[in-house]
Amino acid sequence: MKEIVNCVAYADGVRVADVNLDDVGNYLNDRNQFVWIGLYDPSEEILSQVQTQFHLHELAVEDAHSAHQRPKLEQYGNSIFVVLRTAQINQDHHTEFGETHFFVGDSFIVVVRHGSSVPYTDVRARCEDTPEHLRNGQGFVLYAVMDFIVDRYFPVVHDLEQELESIESKIFKEKPTRETTEQIYDLKRELLEVKRAVSPLIDICNRLMRFDIKCISEETRPYFRDVYDHVIRINEMVDNTRELLNSAMEANFSLLSIAQSDVSKKFAGWAAIIAVPTMVAGFYGMNFRFMPELQWHYGYYVVISVTFVVCFILWYFFRKSGWL
Amino acid sequence: MKEIVNCVAYADGVRVADVNLDDVGNYLNDRNQFVWIGLYDPSEEILSQVQTQFHLHELAVEDAHSAHQRPKLEQYGNSIFVVLRTAQINQDHHTEFGETHFFVGDSFIVVVRHGSSVPYTDVRARCEDTPEHLRNGQGFVLYAVMDFIVDRYFPVVHDLEQELESIESKIFKEKPTRETTEQIYDLKRELLEVKRAVSPLIDICNRLMRFDIKCISEETRPYFRDVYDHVIRINEMVDNTRELLNSAMEANFSLLSIAQSDVSKKFAGWAAIIAVPTMVAGFYGMNFRFMPELQWHYGYYVVISVTFVVCFILWYFFRKSGWL
Amino acid sequence: MKEIVNCVAYADGVRVADVNLDDVGNYLNDRNQFVWIGLYDPSEEILSQVQTQFHLHELAVEDAHSAHQRPKLEQYGNSIFVVLRTAQINQDHHTEFGETHFFVGDSFIVVVRHGSSVPYTDVRARCEDTPEHLRNGQGFVLYAVMDFIVDRYFPVVHDLEQELESIESKIFKEKPTRETTEQIYDLKRELLEVKRAVSPLIDICNRLMRFDIKCISEETRPYFRDVYDHVIRINEMVDNTRELLNSAMEANFSLLSIAQSDVSKKFAGWAAIIAVPTMVAGFYGMNFRFMPELQWHYGYYVVISVTFVVCFILWYFFRKSGWL
Amino acid sequence: MKEIVNCVAYADGVRVADVNLDDVGNYLNDRNQFVWIGLYDPSEEILSQVQTQFHLHELAVEDAHSAHQRPKLEQYGNSIFVVLRTAQINQDHHTEFGETHFFVGDSFIVVVRHGSSVPYTDVRARCEDTPEHLRNGQGFVLYAVMDFIVDRYFPVVHDLEQELESIESKIFKEKPTRETTEQIYDLKRELLEVKRAVSPLIDICNRLMRFDIKCISEETRPYFRDVYDHVIRINEMVDNTRELLNSAMEANFSLLSIAQSDVSKKFAGWAAIIAVPTMVAGFYGMNFRFMPELQWHYGYYVVISVTFVVCFILWYFFRKSGWL
Amino acid sequence: MKEIVNCVAYADGVRVADVNLDDVGNYLNDRNQFVWIGLYDPSEEILSQVQTQFHLHELAVEDAHSAHQRPKLEQYGNSIFVVLRTAQINQDHHTEFGETHFFVGDSFIVVVRHGSSVPYTDVRARCEDTPEHLRNGQGFVLYAVMDFIVDRYFPVVHDLEQELESIESKIFKEKPTRETTEQIYDLKRELLEVKRAVSPLIDICNRLMRFDIKCISEETRPYFRDVYDHVIRINEMVDNTRELLNSAMEANFSLLSIAQSDVSKKFAGWAAIIAVPTMVAGFYGMNFRFMPELQWHYGYYVVISVTFVVCFILWYFFRKSGWL
Repeated sequence: MKEIVNCVAYADGVRVADVNLDDVGNYLNDRNQFVWIGLYDPSEEILSQVQTQFHLHELAVEDAHSAHQRPKLEQYGNSIFVVLRTAQINQDHHTEFGETHFFVGDSFIVVVRHGSSVPYTDVRARCEDTPEHLRNGQGFVLYAVMDFIVDRYFPVVHDLEQELESIESKIFKEKPTRETTEQIYDLKRELLEVKRAVSPLIDICNRLMRFDIKCISEETRPYFRDVYDHVIRINEMVDNTRELLNSAMEANFSLLSIAQSDVSKKFAGWAAIIAVPTMVAGFYGMNFRFMPELQWHYGYYVVISVTFVVCFILWYFFRKSGWL
Repeated sequence: MKEIVNCVAYADGVRVADVNLDDVGNYLNDRNQFVWIGLYDPSEEILSQVQTQFHLHELAVEDAHSAHQRPKLEQYGNSIFVVLRTAQINQDHHTEFGETHFFVGDSFIVVVRHGSSVPYTDVRARCEDTPEHLRNGQGFVLYAVMDFIVDRYFPVVHDLEQELESIESKIFKEKPTRETTEQIYDLKRELLEVKRAVSPLIDICNRLMRFDIKCISEETRPYFRDVYDHVIRINEMVDNTRELLNSAMEANFSLLSIAQSDVSKKFAGWAAIIAVPTMVAGFYGMNFRFMPELQWHYGYYVVISVTFVVCFILWYFFRKSGWL
Repeated sequence: MKEIVNCVAYADGVRVADVNLDDVGNYLNDRNQFVWIGLYDPSEEILSQVQTQFHLHELAVEDAHSAHQRPKLEQYGNSIFVVLRTAQINQDHHTEFGETHFFVGDSFIVVVRHGSSVPYTDVRARCEDTPEHLRNGQGFVLYAVMDFIVDRYFPVVHDLEQELESIESKIFKEKPTRETTEQIYDLKRELLEVKRAVSPLIDICNRLMRFDIKCISEETRPYFRDVYDHVIRINEMVDNTRELLNSAMEANFSLLSIAQSDVSKKFAGWAAIIAVPTMVAGFYGMNFRFMPELQWHYGYYVVISVTFVVCFILWYFFRKSGWL
Repeated sequence: MKEIVNCVAYADGVRVADVNLDDVGNYLNDRNQFVWIGLYDPSEEILSQVQTQFHLHELAVEDAHSAHQRPKLEQYGNSIFVVLRTAQINQDHHTEFGETHFFVGDSFIVVVRHGSSVPYTDVRARCEDTPEHLRNGQGFVLYAVMDFIVDRYFPVVHDLEQELESIESKIFKEKPTRETTEQIYDLKRELLEVKRAVSPLIDICNRLMRFDIKCISEETRPYFRDVYDHVIRINEMVDNTRELLNSAMEANFSLLSIAQSDVSKKFAGWAAIIAVPTMVAGFYGMNFRFMPELQWHYGYYVVISVTFVVCFILWYFFRKSGWL
Repeated sequence: MKEIVNCVAYADGVRVADVNLDDVGNYLNDRNQFVWIGLYDPSEEILSQVQTQFHLHELAVEDAHSAHQRPKLEQYGNSIFVVLRTAQINQDHHTEFGETHFFVGDSFIVVVRHGSSVPYTDVRARCEDTPEHLRNGQGFVLYAVMDFIVDRYFPVVHDLEQELESIESKIFKEKPTRETTEQIYDLKRELLEVKRAVSPLIDICNRLMRFDIKCISEETRPYFRDVYDHVIRINEMVDNTRELLNSAMEANFSLLSIAQSDVSKKFAGWAAIIAVPTMVAGFYGMNFRFMPELQWHYGYYVVISVTFVVCFILWYFFRKSGWL
């Protein structure tokens, strides 16, 4: 995949031209025009070219190069720098995170994609289909891409919720195993990661919809409330899943304890049942000279029968009181 | 059930006419009049008709169609969009949630009911019985329906409290079982759901009674304090139940541990009692040539009696010290 | 007990006359006068009479009738409506809660007592003894009754603290029992109830001492700081007791675990001691033709002595290492 | 110890005269002068004398008499009333709490000491040694005594930290005992008490250094930042110790569980080892007519040797797999 | 190492002269010049010399001498006093903490290094390499050193994260041991220490980038946002590690419980298997006169075979149901 995915100028919400990165300057002075550049894992060279063209702040560009930021919104003079984390489920049902950085200025938006994530060509297409919205400028593009990124968290969270359900059914229907415990731990870890990726977005959306950021047009602000709403919901779903997972874990402890107790009882019960004939046999193994029963003709059978009956009574009694 | 349950115009708090959705425009200009429309699971078509009539915001209508919102209040220009979750207990004693959306504007209120919930015909009847209140306009209708929805949470929460009591009595009076643990987990899950449905209402009521929302008349605001009060109480009851449930669960752990200990002791006690005669019998089973007791005439009886006495003493001792 | 306990007019802090509820209007216009009415479980009729006389808000009167409110302060125009929960310990050492509602207006205070609680005749007497304070009007009466109510929480909390001490001594000095666990749970429940009754008072006192509530005279406000201080202390005592109770419960778990371990060790130790002679006896019970020891004259005694010595050594060794 | 420990007038930071409580009025009008009175467990009589002299508020004097206040700062007109809790370690290594109350007004400070605490004669001496500071008036005296009180918390907290270390070494190096559990509980209780005594000081210092309290001169305010800093540190140390104590407790649980498991394994291992010869002996104790081994000349020795070897193999195997 | 590491004057971002501490006054009046002094564990004498030269506040210098402060920023008139904690990993993989104090004034910065930490000669060199930045004055130096200190926390935290991973693999792959528990406790302690060292920096950076501190030039402020960002990330990594550690500990408990249960089952299983032949042997050891089997020629072999088969069946059954 090439580094510069796209570099297009728009006027009144309509695509005007594919421009060269060096000619971008021509499109920056007209208020009705703006440039939307898409980069993918760009080299330092390209980034510094972008920096020169749009007069970006040195620190923001540095951050955009090293892709291990936490989601944030930083204002540098008239332009803003936004970092988001993208998420998607890979084939092994694990969540993979990528990063997308935005430079938004007076008549441009640069979208820098890092790591594993879906390309934003669909978003671009959809935006170009609604020129009445795209007319609102780079702010709307920021919304469109953020909305796209946030919406891709829903399947991720649904996947985690299903993982929780699978854990629940393991805990309540099957036997507790080491695997369940490890699965719980892994789910916790993933929830924590999603939480860390999503929760800073609440503050970011809040600032985008409330505060006076010049490069975001007035009309676009309500749209960020929509993103905000989705972020809140994802956040709530994650919190919910975490809380239920904690309860599931406590239930697991409780059931382990009960299972342990059941094993003890079963063991104790059978030990008691077996101890009786052993004791009886021991008695009639004694070598006393005078033990009348030993001389009885059916003594042996009587003893065997009696011990069997006693054992059966014990078994029945234990069975009834739930020990076996 | 038809989609448009009702569409009525009111003037000075008195029912004026059943109107057709298309003629609604005639009633929107007079300040003393307002239209109250009730919809049930409306199609996109009807919603877009409503949108056109009342100039509703596109995003709000989108939300109103997809019924999986969290409770919220959003202001779009002069009108507000409110989402509430309704709750009721079904026949299996499980809580079922539905949703009700409100569009409230300058002289209209649209109530959109989704999923399982009681119809609001009773509310309408009661409102029409008190024209002196209904005169306050669509704000009062909003209050009336919200009050109705919130009041229906009380039986739900009472049901959960009774569930807690049933768990308590199982923990303290009966034996710990796998079922109790599962019941605890289920109650936790339901409490979490009710909590999620109710707690955003605190903020919504707050905004309705404090902030300057034009379509809610000044006189109606104190009424929302009443709803607020109920919401706070439901919230508190849920928190209370959750905290007690946690304590009950800890008590359960503790009792499981004591029960486990009791089993161990009982087992150990009986093992000790049975070990004695077994050992004695073993001794008199030895084949030494010179074992004077074996020759005694009553040796056998003496040994049996002595071991029985020893066993009884052990049993008594264990009994007294609480092992058996 | 009659519904209208008292209905007295005061002028300049001095009792002027016992008035009839219908004649109360005569005393409401003079700024130096005010009426103090005491009701007990009033009927709807009386309440509506009071409502008419003092022009109270319909919602407040509704609340005053149904006695299951949470503590709150609500302002209706010039008058305020305050709900407090009263507490006292009954003969079974359980906390019983009642409710007291206040309507305070420009020159009146109505005190409505519900459920089990001490009558406020003593408060009235003490107030009448200090006309220099009572001169401050209905605000001072509100303070006096609130102070009385809050002070009655101290013995309740002391009782709960003693309950905690009894639990502590049971945990650390006696054996863990099912009863202790249940006692812990009950104490938690009671603490939660007291907490719920007391904690809203912090906010109520805050508003009474800070905000501009007209019917409370300027001079009376510092007094509510005194009530505030007591409420904070009661709250802190409850929190403290809860935290210690949690620690006590954890200590209980820990001790249960140690006790369990001790039982296991003791059992294992005795099992080992008894296993030795049983094994030895088994060996000399074998029927080999050539077992020289069996022929020894003192073989039997030697074997008995040796096994006894071995058992004693084991016992001594286990004793020393803390297993028995 | 007498009730009035000291009553001295200062002018420009220099001691002027030991004055009689009744003559104090002469020193209150000059802005450069102030009176510093030290009381110890004063009688109601003395307190009311002080109240009259300095026009103190009735409620503050009431509080000063009953020594069971929580730390607080209350403003009454121009003067403030401060309550602090003092702490020191007694000979049994337990923390003892006392109380010190301050009345600070326009040109006086009354320091009332209650319960066990070190006298403030040293503080007075040190203050008199630096007249350039004492010149700042009663505010500086308040600082000096508060600093003295707060600094005495450091040894208390260090003692608690050492207690934690002793618990740690008991948990990780020695065996878990009932005593450790009780020690943990006691430490928790003491930490809670220190926390309660110290944490309200954060707010008090904040108000003294930030808000405009007239009787505290502008120059003295930065000094309270110093006290604030110490309070924050003590608070942090207490929180730290509490958190580590919780972790230690969890580690204790974990180790108890491991120890329990070790006992079980050891017991199971030895039981298995002993069960083998017992079983073998049982077999050769059978009375079958045809059991060729019994006739072998060295049968007995072979059996003994073989069982011994088997036992040794089991022992070795269990040893290697960590069961013994 | 000498106490005064460096004492250099800069003009317009360029090194002008190595100056003597006594001649520093000459460089303090020109706005384009500033002095950067580096001290290492300075004596009281040197500190008082510095205090005189720069008119530092007595309380700040006192704090600078005793090196056990918590991170803080204090403003004294025009100058500020900053305390940071430095961290590095020593050879035993333990975190060692040092302290660095800063006095920043109108045209000077004094950096006081205490305890184990890397010298700041590299920072000085790098600063001197970028005169365009160093031109911004002492504020930029403060940033450069703070950035250096904060960046050295990353390897420390990475080390703790690796420690967590090692614990994880011990818990999930190996057997639970006392060492793991101790390792968990130690990691918790270290995380707590790092947390305490880092978290106050959030507030410090906030104040440096937001509030109007004169000695920090306007241009330097955005740089502190960079430090802030790093601090937030370190903080988050620590919190993350703590939370995962807690989950790991809970998983450990769970696995201990399962392991315990497995031991019990194994023990119970083998006990049952061995109990059978013992019982059978006991029976045929009875001395009844009439026991036909005893007379059978192959009785002995039959009994041995049958018990062996029974034992094998038991073994197979237990194996299949997961007990062995």
